[in-house]
Amino acid sequence: MKDIEESPITRNGNSLILAYDHGTEHGPVDFEPMPASADPTHVFDVGRHDAVTAIALQKGLAEYYRLWETENDVEGGAPLLVKLNGNSNLAAREDYYSPKQCSVRYAVEELDAAAIGYTMYAGSVHEDEMWTDFREVQEAARDYGVPVVLWSYPRGRGIQENEEYTGQTDPDVVAYGARLGLELGADVVKCKYPGSQEGWQALEDVVGELKTVMSGGSKRSDEAFLDDVSSTLEVGGNGLAVGRNIFQRENPEPLLDKLETVIFEDESA
Amino acid sequence: MKDIEESPITRNGNSLILAYDHGTEHGPVDFEPMPASADPTHVFDVGRHDAVTAIALQKGLAEYYRLWETENDVEGGAPLLVKLNGNSNLAAREDYYSPKQCSVRYAVEELDAAAIGYTMYAGSVHEDEMWTDFREVQEAARDYGVPVVLWSYPRGRGIQENEEYTGQTDPDVVAYGARLGLELGADVVKCKYPGSQEGWQALEDVVGELKTVMSGGSKRSDEAFLDDVSSTLEVGGNGLAVGRNIFQRENPEPLLDKLETVIFEDESA
Amino acid sequence: MKDIEESPITRNGNSLILAYDHGTEHGPVDFEPMPASADPTHVFDVGRHDAVTAIALQKGLAEYYRLWETENDVEGGAPLLVKLNGNSNLAAREDYYSPKQCSVRYAVEELDAAAIGYTMYAGSVHEDEMWTDFREVQEAARDYGVPVVLWSYPRGRGIQENEEYTGQTDPDVVAYGARLGLELGADVVKCKYPGSQEGWQALEDVVGELKTVMSGGSKRSDEAFLDDVSSTLEVGGNGLAVGRNIFQRENPEPLLDKLETVIFEDESA
Amino acid sequence: MKDIEESPITRNGNSLILAYDHGTEHGPVDFEPMPASADPTHVFDVGRHDAVTAIALQKGLAEYYRLWETENDVEGGAPLLVKLNGNSNLAAREDYYSPKQCSVRYAVEELDAAAIGYTMYAGSVHEDEMWTDFREVQEAARDYGVPVVLWSYPRGRGIQENEEYTGQTDPDVVAYGARLGLELGADVVKCKYPGSQEGWQALEDVVGELKTVMSGGSKRSDEAFLDDVSSTLEVGGNGLAVGRNIFQRENPEPLLDKLETVIFEDESA
Amino acid sequence: MKDIEESPITRNGNSLILAYDHGTEHGPVDFEPMPASADPTHVFDVGRHDAVTAIALQKGLAEYYRLWETENDVEGGAPLLVKLNGNSNLAAREDYYSPKQCSVRYAVEELDAAAIGYTMYAGSVHEDEMWTDFREVQEAARDYGVPVVLWSYPRGRGIQENEEYTGQTDPDVVAYGARLGLELGADVVKCKYPGSQEGWQALEDVVGELKTVMSGGSKRSDEAFLDDVSSTLEVGGNGLAVGRNIFQRENPEPLLDKLETVIFEDESA
Repeated sequence: MKDIEESPITRNGNSLILAYDHGTEHGPVDFEPMPASADPTHVFDVGRHDAVTAIALQKGLAEYYRLWETENDVEGGAPLLVKLNGNSNLAAREDYYSPKQCSVRYAVEELDAAAIGYTMYAGSVHEDEMWTDFREVQEAARDYGVPVVLWSYPRGRGIQENEEYTGQTDPDVVAYGARLGLELGADVVKCKYPGSQEGWQALEDVVGELKTVMSGGSKRSDEAFLDDVSSTLEVGGNGLAVGRNIFQRENPEPLLDKLETVIFEDESA
Repeated sequence: MKDIEESPITRNGNSLILAYDHGTEHGPVDFEPMPASADPTHVFDVGRHDAVTAIALQKGLAEYYRLWETENDVEGGAPLLVKLNGNSNLAAREDYYSPKQCSVRYAVEELDAAAIGYTMYAGSVHEDEMWTDFREVQEAARDYGVPVVLWSYPRGRGIQENEEYTGQTDPDVVAYGARLGLELGADVVKCKYPGSQEGWQALEDVVGELKTVMSGGSKRSDEAFLDDVSSTLEVGGNGLAVGRNIFQRENPEPLLDKLETVIFEDESA
Repeated sequence: MKDIEESPITRNGNSLILAYDHGTEHGPVDFEPMPASADPTHVFDVGRHDAVTAIALQKGLAEYYRLWETENDVEGGAPLLVKLNGNSNLAAREDYYSPKQCSVRYAVEELDAAAIGYTMYAGSVHEDEMWTDFREVQEAARDYGVPVVLWSYPRGRGIQENEEYTGQTDPDVVAYGARLGLELGADVVKCKYPGSQEGWQALEDVVGELKTVMSGGSKRSDEAFLDDVSSTLEVGGNGLAVGRNIFQRENPEPLLDKLETVIFEDESA
Repeated sequence: MKDIEESPITRNGNSLILAYDHGTEHGPVDFEPMPASADPTHVFDVGRHDAVTAIALQKGLAEYYRLWETENDVEGGAPLLVKLNGNSNLAAREDYYSPKQCSVRYAVEELDAAAIGYTMYAGSVHEDEMWTDFREVQEAARDYGVPVVLWSYPRGRGIQENEEYTGQTDPDVVAYGARLGLELGADVVKCKYPGSQEGWQALEDVVGELKTVMSGGSKRSDEAFLDDVSSTLEVGGNGLAVGRNIFQRENPEPLLDKLETVIFEDESA
Repeated sequence: MKDIEESPITRNGNSLILAYDHGTEHGPVDFEPMPASADPTHVFDVGRHDAVTAIALQKGLAEYYRLWETENDVEGGAPLLVKLNGNSNLAAREDYYSPKQCSVRYAVEELDAAAIGYTMYAGSVHEDEMWTDFREVQEAARDYGVPVVLWSYPRGRGIQENEEYTGQTDPDVVAYGARLGLELGADVVKCKYPGSQEGWQALEDVVGELKTVMSGGSKRSDEAFLDDVSSTLEVGGNGLAVGRNIFQRENPEPLLDKLETVIFEDESA
């Protein structure tokens, strides 16, 4: 919490995280709408847009990113956020779980990460294991002085079987997930858009000064998407984490320009 | 046991612990009766009342608490009790379990905790795991010289399926839970009110000099509540841990005033 | 094995262990026949009888014991045997298991234990976990030079489902359990009385020079009880571990006097 | 990724890995077509052919290999790739898993491995355990500066029960597996041949600059086999890992000569 | 592999291991045919016969053995092989597993073991756990420079449910088990006699220079037993591990004399 304002992953207090962990989470199918996006260097290049305050990568791509920077003498690339856990959708799992595939030590010492990310599926039968994993991650990150971004995505049997909840984007579920980010010691919490500004307001009401970023939806029009982003910012949101909606387009620059205005400039006005 | 009389979390041998772990345990729903209570700084302020000898917080809020103290140059805030384990009620669990989300090292070295807290659900199918977790916690706390408060809440399948017990507040269950606090090496044990002074007496009869605090009920009138507190103190109880009954009120000061009298002053008379 | 003759927990090669772990294992119900026995200091006092060569306590009570010694300037209290594992009977378990709640390091370095104790339930589906736990305990105890007392109590599904066995006191079961004490590296093995001198003889025949103590039964007359003790000593037994049969009586001194004669003096005659 | 071009396990950027882990994975049955192949020294000798850039062995055979080199004063033997995990097909498993039987430390410090190998079964119910195992392996290998070859073989319940997949050689499955090699930080990924050059092209499209080697099939004619190898090289593949197809023949030299031409010389032309 | 020829547990390249782990594995019932055999010192004495190149004991008996040597000023006792894992047959297990009850460190540093032994049940649902346990054992033994004897006994559900196998002594099963000894880095592998010289030959054909010892059967005549031993030696076997067939006899010396001739002298002729 302390240092997040000073961190390179924020600008004017807000963030735009370019997430590129789809090769892990969904596999090559996510690159089909824009085959060039399968090439990491293509997305690394997109990350050079001024709007991007962090690029979120799994360990292997983070190694690639550092190599690409060196080999291409890149300046101005996005600060590196190493995603410490993840999973494929190939596995047959009893319920949601995301194993660690990078240590904080490796992320910081070897990859020079500016921040680390961790996904938690509260509501899963494996929730308690993830709390335990997260404890180690959070404390190690504190030791290294890097901020912690929590992908807080409540889902799984506990949500499905609870008749009071309508699903992962139920405002009560999203707000509880965000509060867990505060309680467990994250610096930034990344949440699903709960469908309305009221929903985001409810979330902001329970997280104190914790930074919040909206998880980008991929299916709306640009206008609707920008409206959603704006609506979260208006009530205290701190930006966006976005992936396919950027790298699946032929030319992501116009949308990034608009997001830059919405996230960093309107706010500071 | 040794140092608890000297600890800042006691006064005249007794304690009033303001527990604010509801955002973890129950989620935002617990803030609804008093929306301002969702803001941690609101509750931190409540903790400045003289009656409060400890504020119990999860790791993320404890970090926030230390930041708030610094930024607001606060003096006289409540001593910090870091709650080391906890759980959400989002998860689907086979039976009760509460994973650790803070190490003793982090609580003491980084957060300067005056005490640590741990919840144990004896009676659960996960009881043995919690004993093992608690062993490490208790010994590390001894190494650091901070007292250990055990939330001893027997519940789960072992209680439910035992026809001799009527439930979590059965005096036999509560007394057994309290005795475990003594046997396992806690300095303070926090127990459910077993419904009568006789029940609390039975508990006191089996814990030697171990400190005991009653877990605050939220549904009675102030008068009935204060009577319960008094009734435990009369037979050897050492105070109260209370949360919603305080922070869900518009103005908690009058009740805190009364509790201060009951817990610290009547006793020393 | 090496040092047990020199250990303070033996006298003339034999032992009388006053076991007071009932608050953990059975809860307050075991104190009902003699309510004063719920107070640890009452039992600590009983342990000052010359007959007692060790008092067996769980960690929390061992801490209390050391405090009581200091505060009361006690001399001649019983040597401390810290029981490293234990369990409550609140839990719903698949089969018998007893988790560790004290490390050897803590028992020896912080509590100055003269010996450590460990319970093993061979025959349980958790037997293999307990062997693994015991391995660490036994080797750490060797490093610290304190003797190891094994509560060897075969029970659980493997015994129940084996038609060749009649139960926990079947002489074949008891003898196998005793032999495991020898094979696994205990210094003293504590066994159930198998119902006859022949049963104990069979046990002695398979344990070489390993020390054996009979686990005290609580339901016979004093005479029958002393006869059982004598009958084990006649065939090579080394004494008794006893709890309720002592602390549940109004005046345990006469029985302790007799036990002292039987265990330590007749033998040396 | 960084050092793989400089590694002895590549030549002109490509590799031919002679895999001899069949004694572990399948048992003696794999030696029946050519009984001499049961003798490790026979296969070590085959590995002296110039075409071979690495010989992949389990720990016990790797020890044997180093001994054989010393005793026979061998020069020009293949660089050693120690396979860190493996399994027998004797076990009854819930789903695919391959436990580690060699540490990176032992492979590098004691066996002087030039590279290490690890098999991952994405799609298994044990996938998450293997990710966790692989994380440690990959980071330790980075610390030692040895390249990591990932046998990426998606299989198990998650593949079988997914109607979109036809099996282990489904091009979508193979490509996802290859991408995981990139995301998780391998230097070389070893994949099943997906049945066509198009399939291999699809794989190459999603792995950036990661080295890829085809897993040798054993059942085709030499011509068909060499065609498959060529077809992968034409679209960016980096060679072959082959076992039975080599060591099960009376005289493997002619095929190795041809493979050398196809893998190392045509490419550099 | 390297040092086994120099090890005290071999003589002229062969071994006779006197195994005395029956008290752990089977309990007192194995001593009934010869009650004196329950006394470890009786068997230690048997081990002084020149034929014996190692005595295999569990930790507790190994401690006893060292004490017996000191107290009796014994010279010429058998080199000590500490068996690191074992199990009782009291437990109800899902499938075969043998937990460790002695660390390599303790065996070597405290007990001065000349070799260590480990039992692996390939074919069990717990096979993978045992591989992981064995990895640590094997590498620690290498660090200490003591040879590793693998009791390779494939059994359990994977064997029972495989229609291609007839059971634990199926020559294919035995040979696969032996090969695993080679692949996993044992120095000596102990296998069941597969019923014929052809079966043992098949085993020898797949283990390179690995030492092999036959597990002694207890039910044949001396002549048949010696024939079996000879038949394994003729095709490359390196001796015998034997227990009940020796210690259950009134006078084991004549059989040991004959075994000495067969194992050590005929071979060197």
